[in-house]
Amino acid sequence: MKIAIAGYGALSKAVISQISNRDGYEAVAVFTRRDTRLLKVEEEVSLVSFEKITQYKEKVDVMLNCMGSAYDLPVTTPYLASHFNQIDVFDMKDSFQNHFARVDRYAKKGGKLTLVGCGWDPGLFSLFRLYMNAVIPDGKDYTFWGKGIRSGHCSAIRTLEEVEDAAVYTVPDFQAIESIKAFDGISLPHTKTHKKVCFVVLRDGADEKRVTNLIKSMPGYFSNFDTTVNFISKEEFEEEHFSKSQKGRAIRASKNEDDSLAEISLKMKCEPSFTADVLLAFAKAVFKLSQQGQSGCISVFDIKPSDLLDLKDENKFALI
Amino acid sequence: MKIAIAGYGALSKAVISQISNRDGYEAVAVFTRRDTRLLKVEEEVSLVSFEKITQYKEKVDVMLNCMGSAYDLPVTTPYLASHFNQIDVFDMKDSFQNHFARVDRYAKKGGKLTLVGCGWDPGLFSLFRLYMNAVIPDGKDYTFWGKGIRSGHCSAIRTLEEVEDAAVYTVPDFQAIESIKAFDGISLPHTKTHKKVCFVVLRDGADEKRVTNLIKSMPGYFSNFDTTVNFISKEEFEEEHFSKSQKGRAIRASKNEDDSLAEISLKMKCEPSFTADVLLAFAKAVFKLSQQGQSGCISVFDIKPSDLLDLKDENKFALI
Repeated sequence: MKIAIAGYGALSKAVISQISNRDGYEAVAVFTRRDTRLLKVEEEVSLVSFEKITQYKEKVDVMLNCMGSAYDLPVTTPYLASHFNQIDVFDMKDSFQNHFARVDRYAKKGGKLTLVGCGWDPGLFSLFRLYMNAVIPDGKDYTFWGKGIRSGHCSAIRTLEEVEDAAVYTVPDFQAIESIKAFDGISLPHTKTHKKVCFVVLRDGADEKRVTNLIKSMPGYFSNFDTTVNFISKEEFEEEHFSKSQKGRAIRASKNEDDSLAEISLKMKCEPSFTADVLLAFAKAVFKLSQQGQSGCISVFDIKPSDLLDLKDENKFALI
Repeated sequence: MKIAIAGYGALSKAVISQISNRDGYEAVAVFTRRDTRLLKVEEEVSLVSFEKITQYKEKVDVMLNCMGSAYDLPVTTPYLASHFNQIDVFDMKDSFQNHFARVDRYAKKGGKLTLVGCGWDPGLFSLFRLYMNAVIPDGKDYTFWGKGIRSGHCSAIRTLEEVEDAAVYTVPDFQAIESIKAFDGISLPHTKTHKKVCFVVLRDGADEKRVTNLIKSMPGYFSNFDTTVNFISKEEFEEEHFSKSQKGRAIRASKNEDDSLAEISLKMKCEPSFTADVLLAFAKAVFKLSQQGQSGCISVFDIKPSDLLDLKDENKFALI
């Protein structure tokens, strides 16, 4: 399968690396809006200016759109949807419905298929939430992220002109997790059960107070959270904040006397590699469904599990 | 939706009770091969002789086949498949492929749809295994059940003439769970990481040694496990072994340097009620797919997550 990648960041690099470890995938090109002459490319893949992306229409089976979720994807996903089969990593939960509707229009116009909101959360955790909402109808959902750096949040801060680099740790309230597991029935929104701790490297001359305010007022990512912003040197940043490990868990607990509790947890030593693997797995399904004539916008909810793996019957039944 | 139930055991009773707690479902009848005149029915549902089941063909949207997996379902699921849309709780992993093929033939003949292997494991855990096999291609699967009574195992023992009642505890090896989570890469089969502890009430005159041997040699359930059989009085049984709580977890751990680990866990205060809820959730999907013209045999892998919940867009996107 011929894979192309929009955006050239940590996730894109992880996708290229995972493709090189696996059979059945080929990385055709990476598209970036930055000046390709100024970029040092370590991977064996051609880096192409984003302006030329539609020239690759016939050369790509699935486009993985790994650009920033806050500012890039709302524009580039619909644009690319009419030219390519596509997967994006949109994670702005509040504007999902609008994004979906826009992408659907463009994808249908081009007769192509786009899957939006792929990854581990949204993505795998969304699937868990849907299945568990179906089987525990009278329950409550909780999601915890961290402790770990969330790359989408870092990208959001890096979109600020004044910022050279940024690491954002999401830290869950472990006491809240224990309360939920003890069926305390607490109902705190996730904005109250997580803290955001940011470490930011400023460009010369930038104003700390201004950047702090810009970060703390970013909707979706920081504005509703207890957010701390620390400014550090580039040296300290590179020494201390390189870990790509991440954890997350989603819980659904019943509110009735049956006291059922379902939990999914993920531990990733390298979050970008894990997310890349998720994208590549779903790329198979998107390509398959597109070949069957499906077009428009879909979510992970619209894909049959069996479309993710090409299994012979005996292997399929081994997983049952 | 009009639901009927084949078999009248703990799971069937839980289904009837869950239907009475929910909107949108109606319990049409329960079918049993036992003498209906001798049974005391506590639930508000008509108990009908299994011989008359095909007379209800036009009155039932989905038949939930809750009969015993070891001896009943291999016969009754194919038989009912040509007359009804159906869900069964088949859990004999080694003979899944044969069961599936047989049921498929009968279901297609009748133009009906049967979902086999529904519940929490197989069922929800199967889904977890499939998704995680797709996204962690180079990994290992582990499943742990318990500590808790497994109703399928109890039913299997109760099929013995000499047995009045039975409780079977599956006890996982908690040290093995910790080793896996520490990426020890141990590769013990589940037959070595679980013990089976049985408490059996014999009928008058039954021979302990004979029954012990019969139990320990039952394929699938006991023959490959470290199994202990204890004989106790009816009084002790009723006092000590009534708990319907159950736990389970499935884990997939990567074998490579990325060290990803995914885990799903379930805690159920009442396993039959939880399983009943799973069956009722999937009944919606089976009915919907059947109305769309699908027939034959399917597994949980063949159902789109979105077919499980009738959600308005805004509620669907809230789960993403």
